Amino acid sequence: MSLPDSNTSRFSRRRLFGAVGVGAALVGTGAVAACAESDEDQPSDIVEFRGAHQAGIVTPAQDRMHFVAFDITTESRDEFVALLQKWTLMAERLTRGEETFDGGAVGAGEYRPPSDTGEALGLSASSLTLTIGFGPGLFTRFGLADLRPSSLADLQHFPADNLDERRSGGDLCIQACANDPQVAVHAIRNLARVGFGTVSVKWSQLGFGRTSSTSTSQATPRNLFGFKDGTANLKAEDPELLDDFIWVGKDDDQPWMAGGSYLVARRIRMLIESWDRTTLKEQERVIGRSKGTGAPLGLTDEFDALDLDSKGPEGLLIDSDAHVRLASKENLDGIQILRRGYNFTDGSDGFGHLDAGLFFIAYCRDPLTQFVPMQLALARKDLLNEYIQHVGSAVFACPPGLGESEFWGSTLFA
Amino acid sequence: MSLPDSNTSRFSRRRLFGAVGVGAALVGTGAVAACAESDEDQPSDIVEFRGAHQAGIVTPAQDRMHFVAFDITTESRDEFVALLQKWTLMAERLTRGEETFDGGAVGAGEYRPPSDTGEALGLSASSLTLTIGFGPGLFTRFGLADLRPSSLADLQHFPADNLDERRSGGDLCIQACANDPQVAVHAIRNLARVGFGTVSVKWSQLGFGRTSSTSTSQATPRNLFGFKDGTANLKAEDPELLDDFIWVGKDDDQPWMAGGSYLVARRIRMLIESWDRTTLKEQERVIGRSKGTGAPLGLTDEFDALDLDSKGPEGLLIDSDAHVRLASKENLDGIQILRRGYNFTDGSDGFGHLDAGLFFIAYCRDPLTQFVPMQLALARKDLLNEYIQHVGSAVFACPPGLGESEFWGSTLFA
Repeated sequence: MSLPDSNTSRFSRRRLFGAVGVGAALVGTGAVAACAESDEDQPSDIVEFRGAHQAGIVTPAQDRMHFVAFDITTESRDEFVALLQKWTLMAERLTRGEETFDGGAVGAGEYRPPSDTGEALGLSASSLTLTIGFGPGLFTRFGLADLRPSSLADLQHFPADNLDERRSGGDLCIQACANDPQVAVHAIRNLARVGFGTVSVKWSQLGFGRTSSTSTSQATPRNLFGFKDGTANLKAEDPELLDDFIWVGKDDDQPWMAGGSYLVARRIRMLIESWDRTTLKEQERVIGRSKGTGAPLGLTDEFDALDLDSKGPEGLLIDSDAHVRLASKENLDGIQILRRGYNFTDGSDGFGHLDAGLFFIAYCRDPLTQFVPMQLALARKDLLNEYIQHVGSAVFACPPGLGESEFWGSTLFA
Repeated sequence: MSLPDSNTSRFSRRRLFGAVGVGAALVGTGAVAACAESDEDQPSDIVEFRGAHQAGIVTPAQDRMHFVAFDITTESRDEFVALLQKWTLMAERLTRGEETFDGGAVGAGEYRPPSDTGEALGLSASSLTLTIGFGPGLFTRFGLADLRPSSLADLQHFPADNLDERRSGGDLCIQACANDPQVAVHAIRNLARVGFGTVSVKWSQLGFGRTSSTSTSQATPRNLFGFKDGTANLKAEDPELLDDFIWVGKDDDQPWMAGGSYLVARRIRMLIESWDRTTLKEQERVIGRSKGTGAPLGLTDEFDALDLDSKGPEGLLIDSDAHVRLASKENLDGIQILRRGYNFTDGSDGFGHLDAGLFFIAYCRDPLTQFVPMQLALARKDLLNEYIQHVGSAVFACPPGLGESEFWGSTLFA
């Protein structure tokens, strides 16, 4: 097949459209891009696509997300590999703020379908990252069975799981994060478009607000319970911990995963109406932190170290089943993960309530020894369980970052 | 009942949280707010709540939206009026970037449920507007039958309508628009929260990207067909046309609606997979404009005047059934409306496709003489009909703006 050449056009969407683009780039663009508008030749909102690790994991968490899980619908390994190669070229262009292919929305000739759908014309790169992951189902195909990492399997059933199959699983996934949601949606939509006949969308999820920071340069955002979320998250500024807990080592299991990571996605419905009728004291007891500052109970600063043994007149300051205690590394023999989730609201539930919650995304070096014990600890005892329900679940193996001539999955399909 | 006093606290969320607030305000905040960060005492991202007309109609269209329709669940007029009064106080505070009530998320005492859910702490006002509308069902209650405007009735069935009752109608609605989606969601969630027992959520819709401009100062955004949308929209800068086409006159019908407007909402599913396989020439023939510039076919600038009679070698440059022709005032005896819609993507449709499209919102002085004839013209012949399907529909009477002591609906319930 003939692949489009990513090197023949380096024009950004913004440059192509000149003055119009500059004006339009202000539309729906996040803070960084908008404020950097005057310095057009040095766009600060491009996240490098290639590198030792895939972007979108420890790179700073953007504000908006569109996540999609696909089923594979082809029997042909060649066809699937060709799609991965094509997607890689598209993804690299998209993350630079370019159209998906040369020609794009309007330049490929009027007697052909446009090679880009066009709704991101005039918008900047918006820090778009695109991150691919492979689900267990991929390894039942194409002679890949022996290359399946032992850590990659559908997660066990956890207590109180109430999973909807239509929001779970998938043979592969793409996580698109950007500071402009239209840029993230445009990317997923175009990748799904060229996948027609090879893959089909199984489920997808929009997230409107990030709930974790992945860098010490970011303020901690709030989830829909109104609490700061991810204060104790792993951060990009601590590379040793990332090597311990996020990046798969070259001797861990399958060599093709070295430098990669595992993505666990959980769609967590929040029963916000019950939560909203709960007293502040109870909310803070459930979480184990102050709602205003985010500090551990009894302390004053968000980043004060957790002291799980401290007591007040009523006993332990942090309840024995508080969320922050059960999820802490102190309670989990030192286990840590990288959280990268998003708030969602998907219309109504048909019973007079908003269908809202947290689309939890975690990255870890091994889900079986990190996520699973953490979730078991939470699922059994977490006080928060009264106010949440896990309704979707998926796990994916995210291959390492790409060298100059590599494509998504090239270490697997080499 | 005792109403919270909106005058005892004028602290913005940002000021309350001091240094933390400033950092966090950069999280997920639109361009205007973020760039104005240094000028903290003069926030430029507050849209005045009170005035001759409700905000959120001709005020500049913000980037994100959360729209909710409610059913009324009380039999008591007093209870419903009390809710409208309480909502008004909350809405005014929210649009100033304050918490919903004094005390808010953390200051009302630990033995009470917080009076604000807290997920907008640290975020700026983000140009939030909240706009209320009353559906036909309200006027079957509370002795209001004689006050129902004759223009307010469920819309007729249009050719090819495929309406889902679960996404249609409603006794009242609130449109929340903001440049930060978390601010819009926070507002709707808190208004729904205090409405418990009086109203219940019938349906709601998130919009991630605006598809119209309402001011000449705004660039024209693109819809998910990749075309600029709303180029010929009515704009705030032409008050005479607004009086002709948007604002209800004092002698139009019911005096309580003078200065108000009618909101028509249509959830329009786009069959994006079919569209994406169509040639550029066909796409441009269907719309009647160039995809790149947005100019009418045969012309070069987006704002060039439509010339519906101009011909080329193949006949009419703008097809006799092109969308832009059928929707034009030239084709509709001069009718115009104000469009204020949003792009949406709501997961997947269960058939391997994204559930995406346009949440169309139009404001007009009389839906029966403006929206209905326009939609009839489009539903019968529009070439676009091959690629869209109307799946939700609702109409609401939006009362006029609020004077200093008035509440939402005070002209109706006076």
